Formats: sequence, structure tokens, C-alpha cells
Amino acid sequence: MNIGIDVGGTNLVAGLIGDSGEVFFKKKQPTRAREGYETVLGRIEDLVEQVMAEMRGQSPESVGIGVPGIVSADGKTVVSCPNLFWENKPLKRDLEGKIHCPVYLANDATVAGLAENRFGSSQGCRDAVMFTLGTGVGGSVIVGGRVVNGVHGVASEFGHMIVGDGLYRCNCGKMGCLETYSSATAVIWLAKKRIEEGCETEILSMAGGDLEAVNAEMVINAAKNGDAVGLECFKSMADHLAIAISNLVDVLDPEICVLGGGVAHAGTFLLEAVQKSTAERITYKSLVKPEIVLATLENDAGLVGASCIKEYLYD
Amino acid sequence: MNIGIDVGGTNLVAGLIGDSGEVFFKKKQPTRAREGYETVLGRIEDLVEQVMAEMRGQSPESVGIGVPGIVSADGKTVVSCPNLFWENKPLKRDLEGKIHCPVYLANDATVAGLAENRFGSSQGCRDAVMFTLGTGVGGSVIVGGRVVNGVHGVASEFGHMIVGDGLYRCNCGKMGCLETYSSATAVIWLAKKRIEEGCETEILSMAGGDLEAVNAEMVINAAKNGDAVGLECFKSMADHLAIAISNLVDVLDPEICVLGGGVAHAGTFLLEAVQKSTAERITYKSLVKPEIVLATLENDAGLVGASCIKEYLYD
Repeated sequence: MNIGIDVGGTNLVAGLIGDSGEVFFKKKQPTRAREGYETVLGRIEDLVEQVMAEMRGQSPESVGIGVPGIVSADGKTVVSCPNLFWENKPLKRDLEGKIHCPVYLANDATVAGLAENRFGSSQGCRDAVMFTLGTGVGGSVIVGGRVVNGVHGVASEFGHMIVGDGLYRCNCGKMGCLETYSSATAVIWLAKKRIEEGCETEILSMAGGDLEAVNAEMVINAAKNGDAVGLECFKSMADHLAIAISNLVDVLDPEICVLGGGVAHAGTFLLEAVQKSTAERITYKSLVKPEIVLATLENDAGLVGASCIKEYLYD
Repeated sequence: MNIGIDVGGTNLVAGLIGDSGEVFFKKKQPTRAREGYETVLGRIEDLVEQVMAEMRGQSPESVGIGVPGIVSADGKTVVSCPNLFWENKPLKRDLEGKIHCPVYLANDATVAGLAENRFGSSQGCRDAVMFTLGTGVGGSVIVGGRVVNGVHGVASEFGHMIVGDGLYRCNCGKMGCLETYSSATAVIWLAKKRIEEGCETEILSMAGGDLEAVNAEMVINAAKNGDAVGLECFKSMADHLAIAISNLVDVLDPEICVLGGGVAHAGTFLLEAVQKSTAERITYKSLVKPEIVLATLENDAGLVGASCIKEYLYD
């Protein structure tokens, strides 16, 4: 049994996870990141102790933590975590000093990919990638049954792969990032632009006439209804994701590609569009039928994935 | 000691390679691919026997073969090798049946990357990629000290990553492939286009006034001289290679990126341009200073790399 912790911008959640991915119980506290690293660290310690208290004298084998930022290649330091205002925080050492149990860190999108690989949609695949499609686009890479974090800890940042000439400048400063085509933010950006240009669409009325209230779900629902603007935004999202997937096939040729995150709640409508568009873009069409699937784990994926970070590290 | 074999469209070369990458001796025959697979297989067997004959009763531990095509994920079959007119040839079984020694197969660009990793520019790096810049663009991926061939054997086909909207249609049918920007073919294509459009350039006179005689070396030399068309073609090549490298950092974040192949003979002029352009495109500029280097092994890289395929396979 391991403890998994999901460190989010809003909440901290810790849970005791069994060897088959079952969540025995979980504890939650608000993150309140503005109170500073030391205070949040204290809350994480507190959550671990709450979980341990229910273990009736048993000890967890390890504590795994998923963080919304970049973890150093050696797994010891949170290098950068803008949502939490953390920079170069030695979280592994700091928490191990308090709880006397091995601590493992990883990026939250990576952790989601591990959860899917161990207990979800890509189970049994030694070579798997996952896209987490939300406000941004995150990723996870597993090669030969091991997680790939990269020498600077910035591997699997799929959102910043350049997949076109670009519509608007990404937060990272580049033009053409996948995140500016295939995130919820990108879908909303393009829909608003078309509305401002005066294109006829049902999206604005879905948002009660308030441009600022437009969200990705509305745009995707409009696409499902055959609305021209909705379809354009949806197609741009799916097609650029397909470019990214076909580029990943050219690099890694993985067994499976998992789509998760809020945007993936569009379900088979998204899946089928991405499968079709990717099949058209694959380099060796006669050899490769890429397997693209939806994530199957829901809200606990962060906890469950964090609990198994250790299993995916190189010895 | 292992035997390495480089199967090319023109020649077959086999050599006895020592454990430090030394080439004890090598034997060569023309490939004459049009005579068919069985005949070429016979020539390979003949070369292996010639090499063994000089081993004075000693046996090689293995025979490794680099082929200009796609090898199946299980390493048994040459799936596709258009230059040799081979499709689905069980080369491992066929050659093992003749020479009674374990045979290992890999793509020739992959093999070049292994040679650099074991004995050349990326020695000691467990995570390394290499671009082979020639008529086309090939690649090699090593993760955790193991070669990544992919589940269909089409990993590390960097030439077909989409890195822009595209100038002309690639042989593979797609628009925007790296190969259509950063191969020798692409450099020549763009130079010829500019000449045909009437741009003033010294390239045509370098080619003796014969448009068909323009080659990549001329274009790069013109760039070195400050010729505007030469510079444009060179910059397009280097910048799109930089996009591909920064995309690879977003996926794998490798320790090192090696540039090899004929185009890399442009040397530090190319290296410095690609380093500068990549540094501008890296997502996490404050964290990542990618190491980009030129390949250091010369003509024997194919033999040497083939001889060590076995060392890079998963157990």
C-alpha cells in the first residue's frame, strides 16, 4: 500500500491506495498556496499523518506526490510550479524529514499517465503516451515500462510542441504550440474571435449572450449540433492534436495514445475525429494503425498515479 | 568482437569490430539490389564468411546489420526497404540459417546513432537523439540506454515530423515534413525555386550555369559567402531543424542531440546556427540549455554501429 497525494492549485488530496489501485480512503485540505511553501508543506504532512492514523499501525511503502509543475530529473526538487508560487523547493527532502517514509515526486500530467498505464486505458502497454487536454495541454511518456522525465525534467510537455505556424502567442512566448490549438483555452479563443468577427453561431446564445461566458463545452456542443463556428474550432483542435500524435509516432511509435483531461469529456465525438485525422496524417499508413483511446480513470487518477510513481522509475 | 554490416543501396560492407569500436578489417561488395533479395543475401553471407576467415578460428559474438529501411519491432524482418526492393524479408532468420551466429537488424540511421553513442559524440549519455541529414532526414532515439524502435518499428523517423505548414509535398504524401525543410533535397529545392524566380545569387554560377547541377554544398557555401538566396535556404534548413529539436526536447528532453549525415559536413557554420535557433525556441529557456553537437565518427559509423545493436536492446 502506498499513499498518493494530488497537489492542486485549489486542494490537496491524500489517499491510501491499494496494489490494485483501489482508494481505501482519502483526506482533503485547501491548498491556500498564498500562505507559502512551509505552510503548504505542513498541510501535506498533516494529511499524510491523517491517512497513516487510519492504517492501524501499518506503514505505507512510499508516498508519491503529483505537482502541477516541473520536477527535477533526480526527482528531489519542484523546480517550478507557478500556480503555487514554488521555485526550487526540495519537497522530497523536506517531507521525508517529517514523515520518515520514501517520497517520490512527479508532474501531475505524468502521474495521470501512470495511473492510466497501471490501472486504466493503457494497462499492459510498455510504451504509452497520454495527452491531458485542459486549460493547457500536458503529457506523459512511458518507454519500456519506465517514465520519461528528461534530463532537465521537462520531457512530456506536449503542449509546447510546435505543430503549425500559430494563431496567437502561447504563454511560453512561442508561436504554434499545440496548447494554442488543442486546449480548452484555444477552443474558446478561436470561438470568441469568430463571434467578434460577426460569424453566425449558436455559441453566443448558449453563453446567454455574454462573450466572456463562452466555454469549451459550449463550443464542442455547438460542433455536435453542426454549428459552423463550433465545427471549425473543434476541427482545428482535433486536427492539430492529430499532427502532434503523428509526430509522436515519428519519434516514439508508442503502442497506445490516451486522451484525458476536461476536453476529453467530449468523448467519442472527440475520439473519432482525432482517430480519423491521425490516420490521415500517419507517415507509414500501411504499417501503422495507431491505437488512440479515451482515459478511463476519473477524479482519483491523480492520487492513484502518484501512488505508483516509484514503480516507473529506473532502478 | 562482433561483425557489423552496412547494407547500402550501392555497396555492402562488412567489418570485424573490436570492443572499443576499432575496425580490424572490412570487406566490400556491390549490392546490385536489382538481382533480388536471395542474391543479395548470398553476397552478405559471402562477406561474413570472408570476415570470419580472417578471424583464425575465433567466432564473432554476433552479426549486426544496418539497413536503409524499416525493421520490424521484433528485429526479425526488414518490413520495407524501397532502395533494395525488399518487403517483409525475414533477414534475421535467413542469415542465421546460413552463418550459425545471432543476427541483429536495425535501421541505418538508428545504427549511426548507436555508433555515436557508444564510441563518438554522445558517449556516456543514456538519453540521446541523432539527426542524419542527407538526401532525406533520418533519426535515432536512445532512452535509458536502450534503442527506441517503436511498436511498429517506425520510431525515430524524424524526417516526417511536421514542423510547419510546408513548402512542397513530401514523398510520404504529407505537407510540412522536416525532410522538406532540412534535407539536402530541401535546400536544393528552395535554391532552385529562387533561381527560377529570377533572384540574384552566386549559386547558379557555382553550378556552371546548370540548374540541375546545383547541390546542397554549393547552397551552403553561398550562405557562408553571405549570398542572400544561400542564406535564406540555409536559415530555413537550420530553423526548421531547430523546431524539430525543440519539439524533441518537449517530448524526451534528451541529454544530447547529435547532427550527422552529409549536410552536417557544413560543420560549425551549421552547428552554431542550429544551436542559436534552438535556444530561441526552447520552451523552458531558463531551465534547458540543450547540448547540440556534430557527429564525430566518419565513414565506418554504419559498420561500427551495426556491430553494437545487441547492446542497446531490451533484455
